[in-house]
Amino acid sequence: MKQRNTLIPTLKEIPADADIKSHQLLLRAGYIRQNASGIYSFLPLGKRVLKKVEEIVREELDAVGAAELLMPALQPSELWKESGRWGTYGPELMRMNDRHDREFALGATHEEMITSIVRDEIKSYKRLPLTLYQIQTKYRDEKRPRFGLLRGREFVMKDAYSFHSSAESLDDTYEQIFQAYTNIFTRCGLNFRAVIADSGAMGGKDTHEFMVLSEVGEDTIAYSDQSTYAANIEMAEVIDSYSSSNEDMRDTEKVSTPGVKTIEEVASFLEVSRENCIKSLLFKVDEEFVLILSRGDHEINDIKVKNFMNAESVELASAEETKEIMGCTVGSIGPCTAGDKIKIVADQAVKYVRNGIAGANEEGYHLVNVNPERDFQAAVFGDLRFIQEGDPSPDGKGTISFAKGIEVGHVFKLGTRYSDAMNSTYLDENGRAQSIIMGCYGIGVSRTLAAVAEQYNDDRGLVWPSDLSPYDLHLIPINMKDEHQANLANELYEELRKNRYDVLMDDRAERPGVKFADSDLIGLPIRITVGKKASEGIVELKVRKTGDMHEVHKDDLLSTLIDIFKTLS
Amino acid sequence: MKQRNTLIPTLKEIPADADIKSHQLLLRAGYIRQNASGIYSFLPLGKRVLKKVEEIVREELDAVGAAELLMPALQPSELWKESGRWGTYGPELMRMNDRHDREFALGATHEEMITSIVRDEIKSYKRLPLTLYQIQTKYRDEKRPRFGLLRGREFVMKDAYSFHSSAESLDDTYEQIFQAYTNIFTRCGLNFRAVIADSGAMGGKDTHEFMVLSEVGEDTIAYSDQSTYAANIEMAEVIDSYSSSNEDMRDTEKVSTPGVKTIEEVASFLEVSRENCIKSLLFKVDEEFVLILSRGDHEINDIKVKNFMNAESVELASAEETKEIMGCTVGSIGPCTAGDKIKIVADQAVKYVRNGIAGANEEGYHLVNVNPERDFQAAVFGDLRFIQEGDPSPDGKGTISFAKGIEVGHVFKLGTRYSDAMNSTYLDENGRAQSIIMGCYGIGVSRTLAAVAEQYNDDRGLVWPSDLSPYDLHLIPINMKDEHQANLANELYEELRKNRYDVLMDDRAERPGVKFADSDLIGLPIRITVGKKASEGIVELKVRKTGDMHEVHKDDLLSTLIDIFKTLS
Repeated sequence: MKQRNTLIPTLKEIPADADIKSHQLLLRAGYIRQNASGIYSFLPLGKRVLKKVEEIVREELDAVGAAELLMPALQPSELWKESGRWGTYGPELMRMNDRHDREFALGATHEEMITSIVRDEIKSYKRLPLTLYQIQTKYRDEKRPRFGLLRGREFVMKDAYSFHSSAESLDDTYEQIFQAYTNIFTRCGLNFRAVIADSGAMGGKDTHEFMVLSEVGEDTIAYSDQSTYAANIEMAEVIDSYSSSNEDMRDTEKVSTPGVKTIEEVASFLEVSRENCIKSLLFKVDEEFVLILSRGDHEINDIKVKNFMNAESVELASAEETKEIMGCTVGSIGPCTAGDKIKIVADQAVKYVRNGIAGANEEGYHLVNVNPERDFQAAVFGDLRFIQEGDPSPDGKGTISFAKGIEVGHVFKLGTRYSDAMNSTYLDENGRAQSIIMGCYGIGVSRTLAAVAEQYNDDRGLVWPSDLSPYDLHLIPINMKDEHQANLANELYEELRKNRYDVLMDDRAERPGVKFADSDLIGLPIRITVGKKASEGIVELKVRKTGDMHEVHKDDLLSTLIDIFKTLS
Repeated sequence: MKQRNTLIPTLKEIPADADIKSHQLLLRAGYIRQNASGIYSFLPLGKRVLKKVEEIVREELDAVGAAELLMPALQPSELWKESGRWGTYGPELMRMNDRHDREFALGATHEEMITSIVRDEIKSYKRLPLTLYQIQTKYRDEKRPRFGLLRGREFVMKDAYSFHSSAESLDDTYEQIFQAYTNIFTRCGLNFRAVIADSGAMGGKDTHEFMVLSEVGEDTIAYSDQSTYAANIEMAEVIDSYSSSNEDMRDTEKVSTPGVKTIEEVASFLEVSRENCIKSLLFKVDEEFVLILSRGDHEINDIKVKNFMNAESVELASAEETKEIMGCTVGSIGPCTAGDKIKIVADQAVKYVRNGIAGANEEGYHLVNVNPERDFQAAVFGDLRFIQEGDPSPDGKGTISFAKGIEVGHVFKLGTRYSDAMNSTYLDENGRAQSIIMGCYGIGVSRTLAAVAEQYNDDRGLVWPSDLSPYDLHLIPINMKDEHQANLANELYEELRKNRYDVLMDDRAERPGVKFADSDLIGLPIRITVGKKASEGIVELKVRKTGDMHEVHKDDLLSTLIDIFKTLS
């Protein structure tokens, strides 16, 4: 492509509202433009990278036997009412009415629609398993769109759905797609981890997120420093590796702690470590009030509480509710004098506290020398807290560190959540109707592009991995008015294209400084400069990633390029 | 692809609501499914054909130097308000509000958005000309969606836009894209014509539609039987080839014509030919009432009236308005006694009427022996009628015939319609701001797929041209439980794919009759049947288009396929 024939509007300044590298550079290098909050155009360079990501996704999914289709973005509300999500999805689901006032959703995801298609067409176990996918524009009305393509309102997604007659078959496909995802993100050159994730409101069981490690990520990953273990911090299991104390149990005493409320204040006032404090929080678990205990240096994870108690909703009790139930303020509640009026559930670490401190359920007082079992009875102990850096890895190998991650993929065992709600069944070998078992698998395609840009850049601009670069080569004649340069540039342009290189040729009448700065910003793997030595047939190669320069005669150009690309892949 | 791994839900019965061949067959052969009125899913086979059409479009547009981008479907209403189309586009434009109650259009077309992008990025004549295109899902809320993919509400379109600093540059690009379109539809195997079209409300000048000739088309094309001339019937020019009469002018008389109103009734009652009658219609042209005349056997074309009179709107006067202006009912109006109170504009054929019949502006009477110029003065004569079969072709070669057409493409010189409205300017060589001159160019990609299906079928199903077929080969082992057949089929499946053929293998446990019927329905170019002679390494080839059968040894398969595909392209 001649640069004069395309639109690459580079910017010298960093756009004011772009906070992160990828957003800044994709704007500055002319890959994208914003058309409305969270809504972007992919300009020609951006579109080319997008297509390369899409092709990698296609190749890897085709390789595991998935079939591509394309469903509409407009989805009749009836489907979402069948699944129950018309009411529960909230304002993120964009909605509209057609000219006949029929309601439609703009597809945020396609579980409902694919389920409706499959239930109409698949009647027998003989046609299962089946995996279908699409690459499509999706719509989610994010409350605060940000970070450019990382969290937009209109974006490109690959969504796949699998259909099975047995849990084992779902397991097989899940594993295959897990491996395909690993291949995809590896081919995209990303530094990523597959992490154990929360199945959330979707009602499934196994689920993993593919996270690109990045400081700008919005999720925290807990990973082992000595194994492949990684989990979303919300899901990372804490194993019971606490040790018991040999200290004798002392008599409980009530001590005056005027104005002392938080764990920090208690620990400081009584000169004990936070580990020795028992934190008590009153939660409303579904309709029941429950006192949840943790060690003072730990933090209760309400997702774990929810899963542990098999609850639909978990929320902190209000000050009024606390006063009513416990007879005191939030800062003074404790397990000992709570008596039988309230169920107590404790994190497993609390079991090992010896002679600890707890609230006295009385304003201005705490209890010291509190010992579980002796001084209060927990209904049950469990893993209810957030994991912390330094905790042992749940797989027994190494200790936990934290990292930030950008979620680029998600694999999920849906089970029969949608099949049951939408009556999608098949006839089994015995002619009996059974709910189709499903899996779903997403990749944020435009987000992956941004994640690559976030990992591949330097202070001069983008530095694309060669498999994703919009073009392979940036051919830059210094001066198109110089006959030698123009002729050699045109000759090389044709020859390189004939040899299946994608070439971007800067035929603009700009100063060399402008051309080189734009070239660095755009970030193609190799720049070929046609300058003063054009009359001798000599050009200069520059490797974007390393900055290495080579003077090469045109006759050696093809072989040199092959050598350099080998070092880049 | 193994057929068990994909979704090809064939139907035996013709779906009730599918009126035309392409719609019936695309449903029956499992290429598409309807999800809501005018809204379809492309199942795996349909998606594959769609991608092939898209690739042809891309290749031909890339070849003329157009650059691909991707704009969002969600468009802020502000852009459409700038162009004025938010108010004028009507209910076909789908609209929605986001969570902050900001209005958006769902892109029916992208003139506004591309103009907004280009005005922000292109400032100098040095960056012109530029042609940008996208292949994207579009939304139009058709009042009556019908004919499957031919007139849907969500569909795939290629839209291109060009930007220029001179009319000559626009002409050049228009010609190039015209040629690219010719290549595209030729490669798709379509029987089509480029026809002169109406520039309509878009305010441009030159415009052509690419029409696939088909009985199910909704447009009528007037074409020459001896040249390439073709035009939308609304636009086909009628040349002034009428001959003058030598008959003497007779005196005008008023005759009683009780109850006679239409031209047919007048001609019959007075025993004259319709050619000899002068039809008078009262139109409201913008704010002015105008009496428009044509010969009784001709029909006024209001688009021609509109263009001829350079008007914004043209509509027939109501009965009340006619009564008020002309003093009589619609069936009695005529030009002679209309006097100076009304402007008369006449089709050029009227000039040649000698001793004709006209309304008397009096209920129950007509005038006979009416002669233009002597008995009434037309302000102007012009080409105001629809062309008819048998009329001379406007290019002077041959006579006009009619055909029905499906519009699959449209090329259009927009001029500065959008640049002016949206203030999109560049600085010329002298540093003066000028409006950017634009062209726009559309192709209905999903409609093209349906048009091909409409032209390529027989009574057994679809018969894809080999460049668009979802797969090249349909490999059908009769009985996968037969070891010889299964082994040979698997061996050929791998070998053919290695030789870059796209192969669909029917590995289902179905009866041979079902497999063959489905295969004919699906319509891949060549079927390879692995049957009883599998143990000898012999298979049967069947050419879908001709029905020709060949027994071939597996060692000769590749060379035979090359020979057959040569005959198919």
